[in-house]
Amino acid sequence: MQARLLATYRLAVPAAEAESRAAALTAEQSVEMPVEAIADARVRAEIVATVESIRPAGEAFEVTLGLAAATTGPEASQLANMLFGNCSLQPEVELLDVAFPAGYAAAFPGPAQGVAGLREMTGAAGRALTCTALKPQGSTVAHLAGLAGTFARAGVDLVKDDHGLANQAFSPFAARVPAVQRAIEAANRETGGRTLYAPTFSGGPAALAQQARIARDCGVRVALVAPMLVGLPVFEWLRRESGLALLAHPAFGGASRVAPALLLGTLFRLLGADATIFPNHGGRVSYPRETCLAVVQAARGDWESLPATLPVPAGGMSVARVPEMLADYGRDTMLLIGGGLLVAGDALAERSRDFVRAVREASS
Amino acid sequence: MQARLLATYRLAVPAAEAESRAAALTAEQSVEMPVEAIADARVRAEIVATVESIRPAGEAFEVTLGLAAATTGPEASQLANMLFGNCSLQPEVELLDVAFPAGYAAAFPGPAQGVAGLREMTGAAGRALTCTALKPQGSTVAHLAGLAGTFARAGVDLVKDDHGLANQAFSPFAARVPAVQRAIEAANRETGGRTLYAPTFSGGPAALAQQARIARDCGVRVALVAPMLVGLPVFEWLRRESGLALLAHPAFGGASRVAPALLLGTLFRLLGADATIFPNHGGRVSYPRETCLAVVQAARGDWESLPATLPVPAGGMSVARVPEMLADYGRDTMLLIGGGLLVAGDALAERSRDFVRAVREASS
Repeated sequence: MQARLLATYRLAVPAAEAESRAAALTAEQSVEMPVEAIADARVRAEIVATVESIRPAGEAFEVTLGLAAATTGPEASQLANMLFGNCSLQPEVELLDVAFPAGYAAAFPGPAQGVAGLREMTGAAGRALTCTALKPQGSTVAHLAGLAGTFARAGVDLVKDDHGLANQAFSPFAARVPAVQRAIEAANRETGGRTLYAPTFSGGPAALAQQARIARDCGVRVALVAPMLVGLPVFEWLRRESGLALLAHPAFGGASRVAPALLLGTLFRLLGADATIFPNHGGRVSYPRETCLAVVQAARGDWESLPATLPVPAGGMSVARVPEMLADYGRDTMLLIGGGLLVAGDALAERSRDFVRAVREASS
Repeated sequence: MQARLLATYRLAVPAAEAESRAAALTAEQSVEMPVEAIADARVRAEIVATVESIRPAGEAFEVTLGLAAATTGPEASQLANMLFGNCSLQPEVELLDVAFPAGYAAAFPGPAQGVAGLREMTGAAGRALTCTALKPQGSTVAHLAGLAGTFARAGVDLVKDDHGLANQAFSPFAARVPAVQRAIEAANRETGGRTLYAPTFSGGPAALAQQARIARDCGVRVALVAPMLVGLPVFEWLRRESGLALLAHPAFGGASRVAPALLLGTLFRLLGADATIFPNHGGRVSYPRETCLAVVQAARGDWESLPATLPVPAGGMSVARVPEMLADYGRDTMLLIGGGLLVAGDALAERSRDFVRAVREASS
């Protein structure tokens, strides 16, 4: 018997069809042809997926399939393909969870820095970390660099680009990134702080390689990347090749009927996310609290030798919610407040200092 | 006024919330911060998205936003980000359609070959094309090459890898692709035919570049690529750099709450798909017939100077359905039957010839 990934799907089908649909799914997610037409006994035994269990779950069924590890590569796009390639096209199928066989993760990179590395890079020992965002897109480079300096002087640990800041004409990457980095370094020299900058990486492989070069050349050590926008295997490639810590952004990823904990937690961690942003409950996006706790657990729970990924609750958060968020998620967390600082207008510096102080007080 | 993309979303919200949710969406899909906190009047006028219309649609509302073209790059990942980045995380939002401003498409590559080019490459003039798949994964290279030879001798225009055939140990790309290509070329010499082979490309940029090299070196002219697995910008990069015609596969793409015609038709075409596979109605995946007709229209309808993309209905099709499919889709179509041929077992060659004959008879 070959090693199997245990993939659990929610099938919204009538009880009378549960068994036949589970069986159909074993073919769809492996050989994609009628199993009875396969002459090779080895393929039937070792490659075709197996039904491991079928359990009623409310109006639907939870079906666990055994997917042969040999079919997945191991490589990011083929792993996603075997987990949820064709059946992503079937609206009644949802991917809930995956249990990997022992040793499976070793073929993937996992986080280079993770929680411990990001603490060391920012000097944030024994407390939660803070993060904010440069917005809005359309601003001049000078405006964004000014904001970055304000945030850095307030002591925010990580200043990231808004995920909508790409390589547009109004603030091209090659002009924006060195200018923002210089502003942050100047503030660090003033304060003795160690604020980091994470610019948004976007585009195809050639553009990404160039962005990594520009970023490294001016001293940037972290990249903000949306794995679902650039592609899961590209995210893994950046982990291996860029030399930068990776802050994963969930854009374009929430609608894929893959459970958020699996996608933003488990899979992004496996492919190398050092930190992973997720939309916190009570914000602009409505993940329930249990979903958020599951993301956090997937990001930093024990997993063989993989470092923990730093979870980053976000999406319409405010300074007032800092104590509650830290009570829920603990200090191995980075709180991200973007718009909630920027609405302070002229009081931005003060609001930013309030944020930094609130996080330090609530978590140290 | 800057050029705007008109993006239409379905918002499943109560009537009392339609207007405020539409307004919130204008910020979410552009500046991602409260608009009233933006001091720069130019950003408010030129960058923030606008509400163009709100129309009741059944239990929900169809909202058309004007997205500033300047925010989208123009580049595949940033286009996807502005269309459906953050709001993909909101389950009540669905992306239905996009109307691009005049000239917008010119910054993207579009198909290199399209319908006309694929007809020329295969010699299939004035009729629909035929396509089949090498399966199952787990088979030896020799078995797959044998199948390919059988299909080519039967006169199938395009033999593609199953999308699950990646670079696994049982049939590594570097061994499989030259062997299959040789088998097809030998058959072509026998028959005087011009069958093409489309191997599956997968993995990160370095792997894809190597696969393109191997494929070109042995005479392969088409690649099967799932844009949602490798990443939309990677698909565009392959279009520009690989020198191969691209057959797009929908894997991992159906669940993204983007209308199939927009994703598999419009967007894949914009980024360079020469042909696009979609799950036909009445097969293993349940797109309704109108959705399929909309995909076909998006793939090959008039669109400035972009060549037409060849639509490829697939997913559990049979030779018996050839006349009906061609009546629906016309001759600028490639019919894909994979498992429906392989179930013939010992009669595979005969069934393949039946398929080729049925398509010729029904469309010429």
